[in-house]
Amino acid sequence: MLPFSRVTIIGLGLIGSSLCRAIRDHMPTVRVTGYDADPQVRQIARAIDLADDVTDTAGASVTDADLVILCVPVRAMGAAAADIAQDLPAEAIISDVGSCKVDVLAQLNAALPGRCIIPAHPVAGTENSGPEAGFASLFHGRWCIVTPPADADPAAVERVAELWRRVGAEVERMDPPHHDLVLAVTSHLPHLIAYTIVGTASDLEDVTQSEVIKYSAGGFRDFTRIAASDPTMWRDVFLANKDAVLEMLQRFSEDLSALQRAIRWNDGDALFNLFTRTRAIRRSIIEQGQDDAKPDFGRSH
Amino acid sequence: MLPFSRVTIIGLGLIGSSLCRAIRDHMPTVRVTGYDADPQVRQIARAIDLADDVTDTAGASVTDADLVILCVPVRAMGAAAADIAQDLPAEAIISDVGSCKVDVLAQLNAALPGRCIIPAHPVAGTENSGPEAGFASLFHGRWCIVTPPADADPAAVERVAELWRRVGAEVERMDPPHHDLVLAVTSHLPHLIAYTIVGTASDLEDVTQSEVIKYSAGGFRDFTRIAASDPTMWRDVFLANKDAVLEMLQRFSEDLSALQRAIRWNDGDALFNLFTRTRAIRRSIIEQGQDDAKPDFGRSH
Repeated sequence: MLPFSRVTIIGLGLIGSSLCRAIRDHMPTVRVTGYDADPQVRQIARAIDLADDVTDTAGASVTDADLVILCVPVRAMGAAAADIAQDLPAEAIISDVGSCKVDVLAQLNAALPGRCIIPAHPVAGTENSGPEAGFASLFHGRWCIVTPPADADPAAVERVAELWRRVGAEVERMDPPHHDLVLAVTSHLPHLIAYTIVGTASDLEDVTQSEVIKYSAGGFRDFTRIAASDPTMWRDVFLANKDAVLEMLQRFSEDLSALQRAIRWNDGDALFNLFTRTRAIRRSIIEQGQDDAKPDFGRSH
Repeated sequence: MLPFSRVTIIGLGLIGSSLCRAIRDHMPTVRVTGYDADPQVRQIARAIDLADDVTDTAGASVTDADLVILCVPVRAMGAAAADIAQDLPAEAIISDVGSCKVDVLAQLNAALPGRCIIPAHPVAGTENSGPEAGFASLFHGRWCIVTPPADADPAAVERVAELWRRVGAEVERMDPPHHDLVLAVTSHLPHLIAYTIVGTASDLEDVTQSEVIKYSAGGFRDFTRIAASDPTMWRDVFLANKDAVLEMLQRFSEDLSALQRAIRWNDGDALFNLFTRTRAIRRSIIEQGQDDAKPDFGRSH
């Protein structure tokens, strides 16, 4: 028994287009409708046959949906929800894929009062953007965190969870504030740090940008991947999850200062102890199937 | 015409063992002798047939060498050089693979006064360590930076450069202080930041370590790879290249503070502009063959 029969995906970027493909691959009888505010994206979506139908207005995309998933930048969720409010069937469930949940839930509640809102967040992605960057297996073996409001209908929560399991994800449930704290450290802070270091490296006077690029295999290139992620999406994440991001950033800065001091005072033991501890975390991530066991992420040599 | 006929590799970790394999693959008539201060590493090296001969003393490994390459942690270079001083043939060239060159050159000059010292640094590696982690193609398409002292014999510099070209590397020449500045930003700072963030994430109270591991695909896992690198090697790098590392760290911290302020004051434009700029750097790295063009480093999905 399929959890939904008519799913609408609004926002056809990396995640939205991957979801279209994944639903059509794993649940071929589900009717998938797509919409994107950008006419050029809609045109590409039609050309590459992302959905059974790509509509020219947001309203037209939801008229017979039993599930609508918003896949737009987190600060655009409220406007995207307002755009469909008039046409949304009474029984439809609204979900999203945003990377911060407290702020998004507030936006959706404001735009769609009284509706069945079950936010979710698939912890998956690549550094590429746009409708052509998506692929059906993006969610395989990744976690999807469902963050329903406290009073959500359990049956609706289970239907959304089942959709994600069908496309290959493992599902976990969290309350929205805890989700935002966990993701601040596992995703938002890493992106912020990566963006910063790539910026720092490209602003030097004594070392040229071409030298930075040429010798990036010494470690720098690992950071450039997530620093190539979608700028609009990430601007929104940092502003929408401001408190948790600033809290994690403060802790990181303190730890970095301690390390800076250890280097300045030649405290080799402090460095060695930290560097030994961090090795164990990598091992656990690989053991739990959350990264490739092959050296160098399995890059070709 | 081969640049050398009897090469000794001292230190049989990731780089030393890769070099043994690469020389035997690309120059099968060169006699390769290996030595490691750790008897267990010597035993493994013999069992996996890393070299034509693995000796039980450092002195015995160099008696007929025309090139000796020290592949030990950078602060162990002086002691490793002193160990071979008595047995080193007068004509032999000494080189190394260390990640900082000013400090290493000073150590080698002190331990081996008047000898022909041509330091070099292959910008290549993985997060794995030890004799079994090495592989022959590690240097293919990577840069090797040769940093001879100002008065070095040009013929000796060319022979060392040719050895690296033969194992697949592209060779560039730099003066030691500039090398240390370039590597501080392309390699040392990224490792320091990665070690720090992995430490920060594992020290939280409100988010458990198992949650950090579970949801690491949101970006965090990218940092854990280089934070799993050899602790001794990296402790030594930060202490031996202290001034350049502290300088880069200072710049990074200033840039991070600026970003923190932008988040606190909702300056979305500042964030968006930086995030757009950093995308271009990634593109250049891929265009120049210094990283995999496949999304997500080519990880399997």
